[in-house]
Amino acid sequence: MAGIDLNADLGEGFGVWSLGDDDAMLRIVTSANVACGFHAGDPAGLLRVCRNAAERGVRIGAQVSYRDLAGFGRRFIDVAADDLVADVVYQIGALQAIAHASGSAVSYVKPHGALYNTIVINREQAAAVAEAVRSVDATLPVLGMTGSAFFEEATRRGLPTVAEAFADRAYRPDGQLVSRREPGAVLSDQAAIAQRVVTMVRSGQVSAVDGTQISVSVESVCVHGDSPGAVHIATAVRDQLKAAGVDVRAFC
Amino acid sequence: MAGIDLNADLGEGFGVWSLGDDDAMLRIVTSANVACGFHAGDPAGLLRVCRNAAERGVRIGAQVSYRDLAGFGRRFIDVAADDLVADVVYQIGALQAIAHASGSAVSYVKPHGALYNTIVINREQAAAVAEAVRSVDATLPVLGMTGSAFFEEATRRGLPTVAEAFADRAYRPDGQLVSRREPGAVLSDQAAIAQRVVTMVRSGQVSAVDGTQISVSVESVCVHGDSPGAVHIATAVRDQLKAAGVDVRAFC
Amino acid sequence: MAGIDLNADLGEGFGVWSLGDDDAMLRIVTSANVACGFHAGDPAGLLRVCRNAAERGVRIGAQVSYRDLAGFGRRFIDVAADDLVADVVYQIGALQAIAHASGSAVSYVKPHGALYNTIVINREQAAAVAEAVRSVDATLPVLGMTGSAFFEEATRRGLPTVAEAFADRAYRPDGQLVSRREPGAVLSDQAAIAQRVVTMVRSGQVSAVDGTQISVSVESVCVHGDSPGAVHIATAVRDQLKAAGVDVRAFC
Amino acid sequence: MAGIDLNADLGEGFGVWSLGDDDAMLRIVTSANVACGFHAGDPAGLLRVCRNAAERGVRIGAQVSYRDLAGFGRRFIDVAADDLVADVVYQIGALQAIAHASGSAVSYVKPHGALYNTIVINREQAAAVAEAVRSVDATLPVLGMTGSAFFEEATRRGLPTVAEAFADRAYRPDGQLVSRREPGAVLSDQAAIAQRVVTMVRSGQVSAVDGTQISVSVESVCVHGDSPGAVHIATAVRDQLKAAGVDVRAFC
Repeated sequence: MAGIDLNADLGEGFGVWSLGDDDAMLRIVTSANVACGFHAGDPAGLLRVCRNAAERGVRIGAQVSYRDLAGFGRRFIDVAADDLVADVVYQIGALQAIAHASGSAVSYVKPHGALYNTIVINREQAAAVAEAVRSVDATLPVLGMTGSAFFEEATRRGLPTVAEAFADRAYRPDGQLVSRREPGAVLSDQAAIAQRVVTMVRSGQVSAVDGTQISVSVESVCVHGDSPGAVHIATAVRDQLKAAGVDVRAFC
Repeated sequence: MAGIDLNADLGEGFGVWSLGDDDAMLRIVTSANVACGFHAGDPAGLLRVCRNAAERGVRIGAQVSYRDLAGFGRRFIDVAADDLVADVVYQIGALQAIAHASGSAVSYVKPHGALYNTIVINREQAAAVAEAVRSVDATLPVLGMTGSAFFEEATRRGLPTVAEAFADRAYRPDGQLVSRREPGAVLSDQAAIAQRVVTMVRSGQVSAVDGTQISVSVESVCVHGDSPGAVHIATAVRDQLKAAGVDVRAFC
Repeated sequence: MAGIDLNADLGEGFGVWSLGDDDAMLRIVTSANVACGFHAGDPAGLLRVCRNAAERGVRIGAQVSYRDLAGFGRRFIDVAADDLVADVVYQIGALQAIAHASGSAVSYVKPHGALYNTIVINREQAAAVAEAVRSVDATLPVLGMTGSAFFEEATRRGLPTVAEAFADRAYRPDGQLVSRREPGAVLSDQAAIAQRVVTMVRSGQVSAVDGTQISVSVESVCVHGDSPGAVHIATAVRDQLKAAGVDVRAFC
Repeated sequence: MAGIDLNADLGEGFGVWSLGDDDAMLRIVTSANVACGFHAGDPAGLLRVCRNAAERGVRIGAQVSYRDLAGFGRRFIDVAADDLVADVVYQIGALQAIAHASGSAVSYVKPHGALYNTIVINREQAAAVAEAVRSVDATLPVLGMTGSAFFEEATRRGLPTVAEAFADRAYRPDGQLVSRREPGAVLSDQAAIAQRVVTMVRSGQVSAVDGTQISVSVESVCVHGDSPGAVHIATAVRDQLKAAGVDVRAFC
């Protein structure tokens, strides 16, 4: 039976502020990209979400970021490679202890926001993130986009890579994502998104924004939970996959 | 042959700012209390000091603190117990990964500044710190003061405790430290300090500020390195211990 | 015709995170206690709320706090007086420029959270806050509780004081607030709260938690807007005041 | 009699950490670029340096920056224009209050580090900084480089501009600075630097790194004080200017 992993960003509040519905998402996804305190996530909040994830058997990943609470990690920062290595090591370690104290562990690493986008092409920062992961644990998988500089640097260091596709983001014909600054970058039709994910997973094909069919590697599908609508979409994706005979389960 | 551990606070810069002479102190001490980013210590600086400590065979401890860069962790904060547990877990984990990436490991935990002072008597915060250490690693020793609430809570949880004395701080007749706000709290005569440490270590006795002799438990002696004078004092302490036939070595 | 000021805390988001419904509250209150960045409030968010306040003719006050984003300013911090003076000056100035750029100005100062509670009795910190306000502008009114150390220190420096009462907080027989940690500290019955405010404003009397009638000074009533229920209560308070012939208008 | 302004960066410590010798520099320069808390500068430290500047009659400028304590404002951040406007307004206001409480005022604005370098060419961020200054006070001069996008945007908004030259930085033939990442970017020969500044000020000419003579606009000369050597160089610059009959005085 075919299977697919669903991942979502969790633990992205800070202190008094919350974001998204972590509890709802933990009933949907199989992998939780948990913030590590640099773009979001105070330790007590991280401990809560890790405990809930552990209870539900959802795997925990370290969602590492630029140090930028005010910008939620969504702004490129020209960090020197040595600093970025250390920043990422620090974040993974912090979440490892939090996950351990929750009776679980960090099972993978997924960069967040501007760092994620930057290391698709920025070789120096891509190498820094890969090096950081390797120096913490050379067996930790990284989640990201096939063809990225990040995956090349991870592979060069022997790190397992897990190819991710996006449920609700439009693709360009070259396989990259349409920028959020362009119209149509984010899809919103629940039924269409769910059907699209099923097609992606079963055939490895997706319609790009210009209508051409492109191939996507997909071992995990990223869904969002930062609005009530997003939670409904994620639920529909999960339900539709099951209806199509695809098992929603953590990647191996 | 009698032996004693020497510990000092290291890695207490932040970004462009430095504090003390870490390299000099790593030639003197056997245990390095390395900051964890909450009162001081940016990740790249922590990685540097951990690498140097690993190279010199100096053991690394996690110097956990209140979250207070602006106040260098020297101000009491009325943190709720649950938040403090998570804050301490987060910090230990972050330094564990940094130490691991440096080819070493975190071998003990020592609270910093106002947190250190608070948990001598504040039961709730003492329990929170002890619980945090236990939940990360129930075999990790904690450094602190004999008779403190912190040691009671640590012992209750099965954590090893390492009793610490202070080379350059005046003691009250009840065995507590004279507050830094009072005159005479910090000693400065290099020869007198070195001789005092030798006496402490060999006899377990120290002269309190009023002249009475009191007993001190001492498995580790804390020295400072935040000024050129402090480094000279630390050097004198080490030399005098050796001259007195006391081996300066990490606690076990 | 009798009149009363209504004040509420606004601008308490940070970056991507929001808190409460600022727009709804700006249609209800006459004075907006705007965060200054130390417990909440990124500059762009502060600029937005100040522009909206200016547009609606709502007066802007500086809601100064301990430096504590992670704790939302709700934790006592043992800040030295000199540091607290400077922290408060800094915050007022930052908001003055934001308010000025919005076509308005800072018209008063109201301490936030743990700082507010602390300076009811902590003389040193009370003096520090009052001194900070005076050194920025000796004509700026301060909002707070009658009988507090803060009001005494403010009055000693010639600062105008504006006595505040709380719409939804239970009072002790001595006129202080029942601690949030005790049951019944926060009232929730909309009609009862609205009626209570009308009584407070018209008679200067309120029922304490034990049923005794006590006198309260009230030139401004604090309402909350951090939940949909809170906005409804604030609306009811405003409506009930108007129905009782009390003009809701800024204090003078 | 010819005159020239000397400016330097001051107030760049944070909490327990200090940087440079502010007191020494206040005896040398006529304009102090005081940090505003985003790359450096805790409020109490800012208050101290502003009081000292006020006492010595040294003018205070707001040294605004990206929000980046960990990187000391030396890393480009891709901040959205609206956020940057608000960040700069906030910083200027904060320092205005600090300066006011010190018996002085903010007399100009000079961007710091990566922001300074970015807005030489980045039009959007240049416009944001200029707009921020204008919205705080349309008469505030800005310090920067002639020919920069920042000066064009400032001029378009009617802000006075003050052209700055660098005592110890090598120039390219096109008038831009040699990047710090290239060898020879920073000069260190005290006598040569002092002579070079005299030539700059008297003739408006400087030798570029390739030996060609280029014209520089110079109403203020930037000197550094972040090392003992830097203080000596700054002293030599001041002495040599005086010896050459150039009055060291604040720009008008």
